Amino acid sequence: MCPPHPADPEPARGPGPDPGPDPNQRQLLRELLTTYADLNGSVVDELDEEPSPLEFMRYVARNTPFVVRGCASGWEALRRWDRRFLVEAMRGKKVNVAVTPRGKQQPTRRIRPLLPHLPTTVPFARIALDRAPDALNLWIGNSRSVTATHRDGYENLYVQVRGRKHFALLPALCAPALAEVALPRPPGEGPEPAGVPFPTWDPDGVAVGGQEGVRGGEPSRATSSPSSWSRTDDEGFVLAVNYWYDMDYSGSLYPLTNLVRNMSFAQRRPG
Amino acid sequence: MCPPHPADPEPARGPGPDPGPDPNQRQLLRELLTTYADLNGSVVDELDEEPSPLEFMRYVARNTPFVVRGCASGWEALRRWDRRFLVEAMRGKKVNVAVTPRGKQQPTRRIRPLLPHLPTTVPFARIALDRAPDALNLWIGNSRSVTATHRDGYENLYVQVRGRKHFALLPALCAPALAEVALPRPPGEGPEPAGVPFPTWDPDGVAVGGQEGVRGGEPSRATSSPSSWSRTDDEGFVLAVNYWYDMDYSGSLYPLTNLVRNMSFAQRRPG
Repeated sequence: MCPPHPADPEPARGPGPDPGPDPNQRQLLRELLTTYADLNGSVVDELDEEPSPLEFMRYVARNTPFVVRGCASGWEALRRWDRRFLVEAMRGKKVNVAVTPRGKQQPTRRIRPLLPHLPTTVPFARIALDRAPDALNLWIGNSRSVTATHRDGYENLYVQVRGRKHFALLPALCAPALAEVALPRPPGEGPEPAGVPFPTWDPDGVAVGGQEGVRGGEPSRATSSPSSWSRTDDEGFVLAVNYWYDMDYSGSLYPLTNLVRNMSFAQRRPG
Repeated sequence: MCPPHPADPEPARGPGPDPGPDPNQRQLLRELLTTYADLNGSVVDELDEEPSPLEFMRYVARNTPFVVRGCASGWEALRRWDRRFLVEAMRGKKVNVAVTPRGKQQPTRRIRPLLPHLPTTVPFARIALDRAPDALNLWIGNSRSVTATHRDGYENLYVQVRGRKHFALLPALCAPALAEVALPRPPGEGPEPAGVPFPTWDPDGVAVGGQEGVRGGEPSRATSSPSSWSRTDDEGFVLAVNYWYDMDYSGSLYPLTNLVRNMSFAQRRPG
């Protein structure tokens, strides 16, 4: 499920204690992606009904996404929400709208008038993870809406209400293939002078129908992408909600994927 | 829960494409161990009753061990097994006995006469992992018995029947601290010319009562150490059985811990 390792030319090395990009290290990262690809299929499970809490926990343990068909078919949101209803329900209410040059999405959280149409939690996830969701977000978009490739520290249950959404999901350990570079941080924002790591590899070419594509975004499906990389783009008028359950930072997964991200980022830095 | 990174002196580097041990890589591995230690306690959960399949799956997802007190109190083995009973039950039967210079243990699997006294499976594990155990082993030892630090590809449910056993359990990602070296393979055994990786760091100093010690081996307790490193030593006459459930090689854990092991092993190799 990882894209091929980008065949970037090796930068020249400078003197000093930092040997910069290391062919051995690059080889170790290549082996990581190959081992993962050998042991994991590129097909995402599609379930016809909700998993039990135990079945869900097996996906969490493998850090692997899945799709449930029709899981929201009984929701009032699915029956009642459309463009006209939203205009009525939110009339006179302030909402945050993200206007960005290329339609990169931000979620809307001020959706109190809409909450009665949504379950407050996803029972199989609440029972399995033994916690309430940390956030419930509303996503409104159209065919120009794109969410840049990113990673959230959440078990993410994404429910499509209207329209279609295309997901490209990449395992957390795919960082070596994402070619993150340090983008400058806006002035006065954050203490880190080195900038914000940002993936520059674009999964567009394989986002729909290809190995990397997860066409989970049809109405009333849910996709879970626990702490993996994801990128979405919308088709037509799109309404979706998602439930964020805090991921468990204990255990081995977070420190290990953090190591891989640090190794990969170091590979992009000239010596 | 990881021991400190061994402060081995940096070997001299040779010429050629292999830069050998890399101070950056060593620093990345140090950060891995520190991040893990910051996010995880060094205390192993002790449960007063068996976990449910879902609770067990949460431990599997975190790749974290636990102890159950009294979980085998109803077993016939616990009531009937002692030195005299074993001699009677196994009279005339062939068993494998591992005689090694320093008492390193090997399990005994030819225990058919004893099986009626043992459950054939551990229900919470069978339900959670959706599989039968791959093996059921019997361990017989005394105060000179030691199992060298090693790693098994199993979810391991270890049940102490007689005596006490001291466990040192280390997370799978602790490979950088174990100082593995390549030991020569016996002639004609295996294709790998480079030898067998073997941990040389000895957790003896902290195995009992220290941070690394898990005193889970009193009668009728079970310890699970999913694909982690473990080392045991016995106290007095010891009888124990364990159930091996194949670990799940899909998902991210195996490729990631394999990467760390390869990185750590490379650090021990002079350039």
